Amino acid sequence: MKGKSKKKPAPEKPWGGRFSEGTAPAVENFTASIHYDNRLFRHDIAGSRAHATMLARQGLISIEERDSILGGLAEIEQEIAEGRFAFSVELEDIHMHIEKALVDKIGAAGEKLHTARSRNDQVALDIRLYLRDECARITDLLIGLQRALVGLARKYLGAVMPGYTHLQRAQPVLVSHHLLAYYEMFDRDRERVADCLKRINIMPLGSAALAGTGLPVDREFVARELGFAAVTANSMDAVADRDFAVEFTAACSLIQVHLSRLAEELVLWSSREFGFVEIADRYCTGSSIMPQKKNPDIPELVRGKSGRVFGNLMALLTMLKGLPLAYNRDLQEDKEAIFDTVDTVTQCLAMTSEMMGGLVFNVNALEEACETGFMTATDIADYLVRKNVPFRTAHAIVGSIVGLCLDRGKELPELSLAELQGFSELIEDDIFAVLSTAGSVASRNSAGGTSTRAVSRALDLAEQKLGGRPGAAGGK
Amino acid sequence: MKGKSKKKPAPEKPWGGRFSEGTAPAVENFTASIHYDNRLFRHDIAGSRAHATMLARQGLISIEERDSILGGLAEIEQEIAEGRFAFSVELEDIHMHIEKALVDKIGAAGEKLHTARSRNDQVALDIRLYLRDECARITDLLIGLQRALVGLARKYLGAVMPGYTHLQRAQPVLVSHHLLAYYEMFDRDRERVADCLKRINIMPLGSAALAGTGLPVDREFVARELGFAAVTANSMDAVADRDFAVEFTAACSLIQVHLSRLAEELVLWSSREFGFVEIADRYCTGSSIMPQKKNPDIPELVRGKSGRVFGNLMALLTMLKGLPLAYNRDLQEDKEAIFDTVDTVTQCLAMTSEMMGGLVFNVNALEEACETGFMTATDIADYLVRKNVPFRTAHAIVGSIVGLCLDRGKELPELSLAELQGFSELIEDDIFAVLSTAGSVASRNSAGGTSTRAVSRALDLAEQKLGGRPGAAGGK
Amino acid sequence: MKGKSKKKPAPEKPWGGRFSEGTAPAVENFTASIHYDNRLFRHDIAGSRAHATMLARQGLISIEERDSILGGLAEIEQEIAEGRFAFSVELEDIHMHIEKALVDKIGAAGEKLHTARSRNDQVALDIRLYLRDECARITDLLIGLQRALVGLARKYLGAVMPGYTHLQRAQPVLVSHHLLAYYEMFDRDRERVADCLKRINIMPLGSAALAGTGLPVDREFVARELGFAAVTANSMDAVADRDFAVEFTAACSLIQVHLSRLAEELVLWSSREFGFVEIADRYCTGSSIMPQKKNPDIPELVRGKSGRVFGNLMALLTMLKGLPLAYNRDLQEDKEAIFDTVDTVTQCLAMTSEMMGGLVFNVNALEEACETGFMTATDIADYLVRKNVPFRTAHAIVGSIVGLCLDRGKELPELSLAELQGFSELIEDDIFAVLSTAGSVASRNSAGGTSTRAVSRALDLAEQKLGGRPGAAGGK
Amino acid sequence: MKGKSKKKPAPEKPWGGRFSEGTAPAVENFTASIHYDNRLFRHDIAGSRAHATMLARQGLISIEERDSILGGLAEIEQEIAEGRFAFSVELEDIHMHIEKALVDKIGAAGEKLHTARSRNDQVALDIRLYLRDECARITDLLIGLQRALVGLARKYLGAVMPGYTHLQRAQPVLVSHHLLAYYEMFDRDRERVADCLKRINIMPLGSAALAGTGLPVDREFVARELGFAAVTANSMDAVADRDFAVEFTAACSLIQVHLSRLAEELVLWSSREFGFVEIADRYCTGSSIMPQKKNPDIPELVRGKSGRVFGNLMALLTMLKGLPLAYNRDLQEDKEAIFDTVDTVTQCLAMTSEMMGGLVFNVNALEEACETGFMTATDIADYLVRKNVPFRTAHAIVGSIVGLCLDRGKELPELSLAELQGFSELIEDDIFAVLSTAGSVASRNSAGGTSTRAVSRALDLAEQKLGGRPGAAGGK
Repeated sequence: MKGKSKKKPAPEKPWGGRFSEGTAPAVENFTASIHYDNRLFRHDIAGSRAHATMLARQGLISIEERDSILGGLAEIEQEIAEGRFAFSVELEDIHMHIEKALVDKIGAAGEKLHTARSRNDQVALDIRLYLRDECARITDLLIGLQRALVGLARKYLGAVMPGYTHLQRAQPVLVSHHLLAYYEMFDRDRERVADCLKRINIMPLGSAALAGTGLPVDREFVARELGFAAVTANSMDAVADRDFAVEFTAACSLIQVHLSRLAEELVLWSSREFGFVEIADRYCTGSSIMPQKKNPDIPELVRGKSGRVFGNLMALLTMLKGLPLAYNRDLQEDKEAIFDTVDTVTQCLAMTSEMMGGLVFNVNALEEACETGFMTATDIADYLVRKNVPFRTAHAIVGSIVGLCLDRGKELPELSLAELQGFSELIEDDIFAVLSTAGSVASRNSAGGTSTRAVSRALDLAEQKLGGRPGAAGGK
Repeated sequence: MKGKSKKKPAPEKPWGGRFSEGTAPAVENFTASIHYDNRLFRHDIAGSRAHATMLARQGLISIEERDSILGGLAEIEQEIAEGRFAFSVELEDIHMHIEKALVDKIGAAGEKLHTARSRNDQVALDIRLYLRDECARITDLLIGLQRALVGLARKYLGAVMPGYTHLQRAQPVLVSHHLLAYYEMFDRDRERVADCLKRINIMPLGSAALAGTGLPVDREFVARELGFAAVTANSMDAVADRDFAVEFTAACSLIQVHLSRLAEELVLWSSREFGFVEIADRYCTGSSIMPQKKNPDIPELVRGKSGRVFGNLMALLTMLKGLPLAYNRDLQEDKEAIFDTVDTVTQCLAMTSEMMGGLVFNVNALEEACETGFMTATDIADYLVRKNVPFRTAHAIVGSIVGLCLDRGKELPELSLAELQGFSELIEDDIFAVLSTAGSVASRNSAGGTSTRAVSRALDLAEQKLGGRPGAAGGK
Repeated sequence: MKGKSKKKPAPEKPWGGRFSEGTAPAVENFTASIHYDNRLFRHDIAGSRAHATMLARQGLISIEERDSILGGLAEIEQEIAEGRFAFSVELEDIHMHIEKALVDKIGAAGEKLHTARSRNDQVALDIRLYLRDECARITDLLIGLQRALVGLARKYLGAVMPGYTHLQRAQPVLVSHHLLAYYEMFDRDRERVADCLKRINIMPLGSAALAGTGLPVDREFVARELGFAAVTANSMDAVADRDFAVEFTAACSLIQVHLSRLAEELVLWSSREFGFVEIADRYCTGSSIMPQKKNPDIPELVRGKSGRVFGNLMALLTMLKGLPLAYNRDLQEDKEAIFDTVDTVTQCLAMTSEMMGGLVFNVNALEEACETGFMTATDIADYLVRKNVPFRTAHAIVGSIVGLCLDRGKELPELSLAELQGFSELIEDDIFAVLSTAGSVASRNSAGGTSTRAVSRALDLAEQKLGGRPGAAGGK
Repeated sequence: MKGKSKKKPAPEKPWGGRFSEGTAPAVENFTASIHYDNRLFRHDIAGSRAHATMLARQGLISIEERDSILGGLAEIEQEIAEGRFAFSVELEDIHMHIEKALVDKIGAAGEKLHTARSRNDQVALDIRLYLRDECARITDLLIGLQRALVGLARKYLGAVMPGYTHLQRAQPVLVSHHLLAYYEMFDRDRERVADCLKRINIMPLGSAALAGTGLPVDREFVARELGFAAVTANSMDAVADRDFAVEFTAACSLIQVHLSRLAEELVLWSSREFGFVEIADRYCTGSSIMPQKKNPDIPELVRGKSGRVFGNLMALLTMLKGLPLAYNRDLQEDKEAIFDTVDTVTQCLAMTSEMMGGLVFNVNALEEACETGFMTATDIADYLVRKNVPFRTAHAIVGSIVGLCLDRGKELPELSLAELQGFSELIEDDIFAVLSTAGSVASRNSAGGTSTRAVSRALDLAEQKLGGRPGAAGGK
């Protein structure tokens, strides 16, 4: 290279040619992403490997150059994995670190790796590869938690507990029915993650900076090499798109919603007032001042962490709002939000699964709790409906019966037949079966209902979908 | 009904039997939802129609009662549609209004409609029916906007414009390529809405309050009647679940992200500084003080409304955080967030589509803009790569060439061959084709790239997917 | 006005001169704000009144014109207040409606009202006037709620209840102490509203479109007329600023946080499991299906509405993100977020105050609850500390004592002296006073602690700050 | 300690006495906060120092014990500062690390430090101390940025530029006026931080776990020692309160809003299309593929980071929503949100200040830009108003004049007097002074307007408030 050089180029920078002064160190610190995007090194190298292979197939580099590149990348991957690789903010990001190390190792061939590629499409590729892996891991963790729930549901099949609406006792339900409600939530989460993955699993490389490349690349080949289902259809969209990050974080937000609901219930149930479950000591901590305390820290933290994922979602949406095409540096802010979301959700799922494995329901307390709160009142109304009393009339009759109970300090089964008949002559001796917890639960046999028959069917189906009945609760 | 009555029951309330005093009027105002959920009347009536039909089939009501109910519901639907129906906060919500009106019309048969049903599963049904309709409408609006974009892309095929990264001119692209980037975004939106619909389109009725019902209902029949793909699998989950509302709002948030990005570009492009497009006068407004102003109000409002949908998403997530099973009154707060999301997104989509139809690109200004900004610099680098210069070296050479241009106040095509060869002897006379806007655009022929050939392919495919080439821009 | 007129101006629009076609009706619907900003009519008229008075003082209009304007505005205000005013989307917003009506009433003088004014500074004025009023109203509501809390605290002074951390029983506290914790939260809310008001109460009129006006206005006069503390210092900032809306909504978000925490506790306390309080029937509703239910709807809705205000905050922040100076139409989206925030917070405050007035604590149940849960364990540790046992050692000793209780199914006061002395010979007969609920509570006499003495002081101080001891709970 | 020991206590844990099994290692990892709260070590030690001093004054520990504690703490502080301190998840948090190290160093006296203290009040103290420091730092950074803005405003005083509304050229303004708009925004930020600090600067220690302490502490002394303005008034509120974290993050969100608006303008202004400013090379970076690019990375990242702080705000609000009193483990999630907010805001402020120092306005381009866009149209209207034409009529006349210009492709000053008089005979020869940029700017002399006189006043005042005129732009 000859020509004028009165300007001092930005040293070390791959893009320094046009610049008349070096980057200010504070700017390097501010703009660098290497302190967090080093997490992507395996995905970056996998992408470069496929890219180099393609370049050689297309005659853009020689076979020898390709082999030299592949060898260099393998060494670098190992060095990073073993902690023997030096990172520096001057080199900005993981892409530049690996390219620089490659050139240091193999010389000119390394300078060819960035042919027909920009960091704009490269980073899009890396995040997609990363999120593809994480979707798989989260799916596994969701399955693990479902197994734990199903294991508990199987173990406690037959045990009853109060079902609540408005946190008021409403109708008796099976413990297993309650647990399987969460099974359903996490099933939807799996579906959502799978749907999101369809839009993640598309290959952006070859979009170059924003307009595609003039060099004869083979994008379909790269996609096949890396296991992608398709290539992106528009180069400008491909480098400007972070929809998949938003969609992923939204799916994770719902996972956290579900975990927070379960967490809330565990906090309630392990309170002295409810006394429904005991969380194993190894999943609790104590107090630095109150010697008697045993605190449900895990569900509390899981609940508290939900806002964190919602916040990441808000951060990503705000980042994208009003951003013109194509790539803007704002997009660099995607990664920490994604990484924090992944870390939070995977930890919360793993901890919840493990803790559920150590959960012991206090079956007697649950059963006792069903005896109070007039929870079979609806059953009387249904009883009257079967005798052709219009539902609204039946509802009003039972409302008055409950009023009597409140006045007299009695529960429903404690009323005499005469007392009951004072409200409706249609009430006969068979009412007492209806008023029992067992009778109430057994009767709710509609699809999705809480009868043992309906719940057994749901449990069988869940076990079948999860690939066989798990062993103990906690579910291996 | 006989029995004690020393307590004054809450008058008019379907649940008043057990209460010793009426609801405070301020409480009625605070808890009522009728001022917004009246929007659901058609869906509520559709659900009741299917429910009554099923009750009759199952022998829970007689054929005559069913017919009486269906007749009454038809009258009520017409009265509401025609604005002849009186709403009142005392009756709380749309469900109670319709049931009360039915009883007033047909008497005791009306009192049987709520058999085997709770408002908890009823409202879940209504929202699902409502959102199913709105998903279809939003999909249509997305298609309409895609048609407008494709129409413009067809109309301007061949026209060039600067492509930007970091809002700096980067590489020339086709106007049509830029427009089709948005086509892709809205295509993903359609996919997301469709995926969301899978989880909306599941039938919750029969879950009753939370535990299912003891009466012999046929949930599958109701699902078929209403066109649902399946019934919910767990009654507690069914009444506590608002995941679909979150997922729907998250999908709409991404639609708004895309609209806000397009809006930002329209604001930029219609500024004096860019001068790329003219928005038709009928889509702009003026200033109350500055007589010369013509303002791009529509894109500004569309951009400004994005936060509103994000806010609704946050509202829903916060509402669900830490909520124990099953139904809690907090869930009533879902509806206004959903309705506002629907209204915002449908308006923004419709207005953007319409405005795009009246958009005129200033083709000459766009072409001129491509002549400045060194936008073919990458093409020189690729030219050198084809001559076997390693990309990094080529990049550095071109960086220096740009430096020279900046020094001498020249654009790249204004350099002489001698000047260029001063940087690399590999540069020959054919470089000038490479330096032209047309040459640059034509070369980017990779899949998804901006060459006319690649864009034509994309355009053909888009038109095909949209069911034929739309007529004029704006796309009828 | 002479001159060319081959273009058809946008009819009826005050800015139509430069336009060649009228606004599309759909655009009018989309851009109009009259359906919500009519709420500002009194503030808009107050601002115009002060503006007209100033214009006359400065000789920009005559005294007769001023009087004519003031007369017209008075009529319009009355018409709107009485519902006799016709609104139309064609006139866009409340400002244009009032100006148009004024011109219709008084002719040319009305056309002078907009002298030296733009809608940009006019709307900024209106919102500031509106929020100033609402800050006062919210402050009153906060005081009302504080009175209700203080009234209850006075009424139940002396009653004990379990204090919780991690929702586990921790140490006994006074009911009044617990209630006064909320008094403190709402006191901070009052401070925040007052601080926010300082930045609201600044007068923007005279900033005109963005650059100030060339006409000789007197902004200080207008500020004095309207009771503002100062005038805005920079015209571009003045029309682009919505910080006060964000700050107001953030302050309201914290109010909702506090209300949601109180609501959560009311839901817990009124559950069967806790059984600590009874909410009056008139503040509860029942179930359409379960005749026995009495649901704490108000606290549930209050809790559920917190997300709504957080969502409004997000909407406003997103709206402002990345907005260049000065006014952009995006800013129109401030109003619905503000109005909804005001409505939500004022309703929630009012309902909570009213409901607290009807709250009955179950004093016996609360006292009984204090007898279980080893809540005086810390007191034993403090007892040992007073005997010079290092706190960590004391903590460990008491941990073991609790372990023994768990093993033997005993509460702490049920242990014998011998059993206790098995853990430390320093324990003597006086330990049993320490182990009692009353002894524990009485001992915590540090500033801000739960002893009756400390709480009485806090209560006296609160009553004094609220201007005298309120009457009954609910606080008139 | 004697007594039963058949249970294996949780080893090493300060609260292990009551537990029958050790904490699971995964739980330690999940619940530990030491990897981020070690940042609080100085504040934790400062708090312990004051606490120990108070304990000795109150006779709860001896003078010797106090001195031993203070010596040990000094050593520990130095070890941590120098990186010689070993952290471990088993010890959970910074509080336990320091206490454990102290006991290891000085034995039994160390075990007395936690007397009359809980981690609940200790951590509240630490965060308040930390945020107090950060409020001071952020205030300094805000002042630094204000200096940079004022320095630029002084340097360019007299230079004109187009003022925009709706990103359409509206009226000419002074560059300095535009810059001082941001001065005002950051001034409000300083006020908000100061107001927030009032609620941070209150001392919580002595609240103990939740109920206060039975030991004779002196909270006022500790407050004085640590420079707090007051002590918290209610112990339950004190340990459950994170309002100050929300308020702080809300204040920081508005700082980011302002920074994002400035950033947006810098991105626009440094685009080729605007060409208003040049950002120094050392604050920009280039492209890995396009050799000609110079990108405004800093403002892009600053803009992109706004969402991150909004997200932290959402995380904190969600965390607090519906949390019962008093301390819950959810509250541990406050710290990372706070720390990330502090880091983001301080970096963005520092980088923006530094970059502003290197900003060069292209004065000629700005002036030229003022010649187009009919930006003095309002001035003609005001001219006519001064001749007693009602403003609305004047506005319509000028609208038609602009229409003529558009038709003929002329700017306003290019019209002949005859042409102008065709619209109103009141227009005379003096109109041309009104039509000039300089005339327009000079005329807007209302308080807060853009005239050089008004801006000079504002600038003088700003310099005075900042303590003297800063030197060069960038402002030392």
